[in-house]
Amino acid sequence: FEKAGVNVSVVFGLLSEEAARQMRSRGKSLKAKDGKLPFCAMGVSSVIHPKNPHVPTMHFNYRYFEIEEADGTKQWWFGGGTDLTPTYLNEEDAVHFHKTLKEACDKHDLKLYPKYKKWCDDYFYIKHRGERRGIGGIFFDDVDSPSKEEVFQFVKSCAKAVVPCYIPIVKRHCHDSFTPEEKLWQQLRRGRYVEFNLVYDRGTKFGLLTPGSRIESILMSLPLTARWEYMHTPPESSKEAEILEVLRNPKDWVH
Amino acid sequence: FEKAGVNVSVVFGLLSEEAARQMRSRGKSLKAKDGKLPFCAMGVSSVIHPKNPHVPTMHFNYRYFEIEEADGTKQWWFGGGTDLTPTYLNEEDAVHFHKTLKEACDKHDLKLYPKYKKWCDDYFYIKHRGERRGIGGIFFDDVDSPSKEEVFQFVKSCAKAVVPCYIPIVKRHCHDSFTPEEKLWQQLRRGRYVEFNLVYDRGTKFGLLTPGSRIESILMSLPLTARWEYMHTPPESSKEAEILEVLRNPKDWVH
Repeated sequence: FEKAGVNVSVVFGLLSEEAARQMRSRGKSLKAKDGKLPFCAMGVSSVIHPKNPHVPTMHFNYRYFEIEEADGTKQWWFGGGTDLTPTYLNEEDAVHFHKTLKEACDKHDLKLYPKYKKWCDDYFYIKHRGERRGIGGIFFDDVDSPSKEEVFQFVKSCAKAVVPCYIPIVKRHCHDSFTPEEKLWQQLRRGRYVEFNLVYDRGTKFGLLTPGSRIESILMSLPLTARWEYMHTPPESSKEAEILEVLRNPKDWVH
Repeated sequence: FEKAGVNVSVVFGLLSEEAARQMRSRGKSLKAKDGKLPFCAMGVSSVIHPKNPHVPTMHFNYRYFEIEEADGTKQWWFGGGTDLTPTYLNEEDAVHFHKTLKEACDKHDLKLYPKYKKWCDDYFYIKHRGERRGIGGIFFDDVDSPSKEEVFQFVKSCAKAVVPCYIPIVKRHCHDSFTPEEKLWQQLRRGRYVEFNLVYDRGTKFGLLTPGSRIESILMSLPLTARWEYMHTPPESSKEAEILEVLRNPKDWVH
């Protein structure tokens, strides 16, 4: 791997006005005492950027959040997801990845996979490019029903699916040969990864706004290297154009 | 040069609610008609990222903005600046750069250079790193006094100073030899350049929010390549630590 990291975080603290605004945009309205909200957050996340352009980048994050309002009531919710960012499209890998996630979701409720698959496509949208960061997976946030125990069981199923989702894809391609042109295309795609994470990702924005947060941990998700070329456009019907097409128009990989 | 570009833009259009909010954060309050504001903007900007780590990156931008409020009154202002981002500190270059800018400002008003030098240090601040993007220069915005003609003359002086500011530095160092370690440090600094531009730069944010804007022109400012290493810290009293010190604590290069 070129760069890979795992973050485990458990944070207790007071949410600043600015960070609270960041949360409110998620649709939660929170009543603060003196503009400060005691909170507790914990999560595990990982990003893996492989060297080989035929092995996709994978990211997952599962987290639990608890916040205490002015009147003492506690709000809690789970969030998370797993998503894949290939440099080149491999349909078999895409189907395997989504199918494994769907099976993890289906054990709990058949409605979950379609809902969280769409949420993932919507979340990882690089608006100024009209592209998604990758071919998606699942994503959810603010999940606080049916019950804390049931949501926790669901999140555990998702987390357990990470290894069977991704490792078979790594094994299948880690010895694939690649050309300098393929490596270059990977570097340009890494540039888009940086654009998404720095411009849109709520987790990153929240982290950068939290006073005293560990910047190196937050920006661990950035690739080792990235590239920006002015007006780079892959030729029609190339392998590069093929992946762009599914980033622009997400597909249903499993039904 | 590794990557260099010049943007000339003349834009007429309607400012969206979101883009207008972006402007209001500059301290202008604008009365909109049906949530839309007709505006006209023009500017020239350039970013030059050299290959050689002993030649600094230079950026300048000079622009004019006009906006029509609901009652038909027009607000106008000039903005811009020139700033330098070295990979390694060279005091002589820093003094030459700032001195040339100071002379351009002093022709108009002795108060301008100190004010716009500080504004530049404050603007190019990467808050989450506690560092400036570079060793500064001048920066100003919302300048609409004493008169349109006088501000225009001042902006012209600044623009004319770009070449004498920068080209002597390029000539002095473009044949300097460099090591792979120096190139690597340059790439890490380029990563910080990307962080500033995508997370903080108002021009970039404004551009990404403007519907139909030319994304490739806006992101032209990004370097060709950049690098992020987890927990990279240069050794004490190294050349790398020396530049970090002045990025953390900006110096007065001319008095």
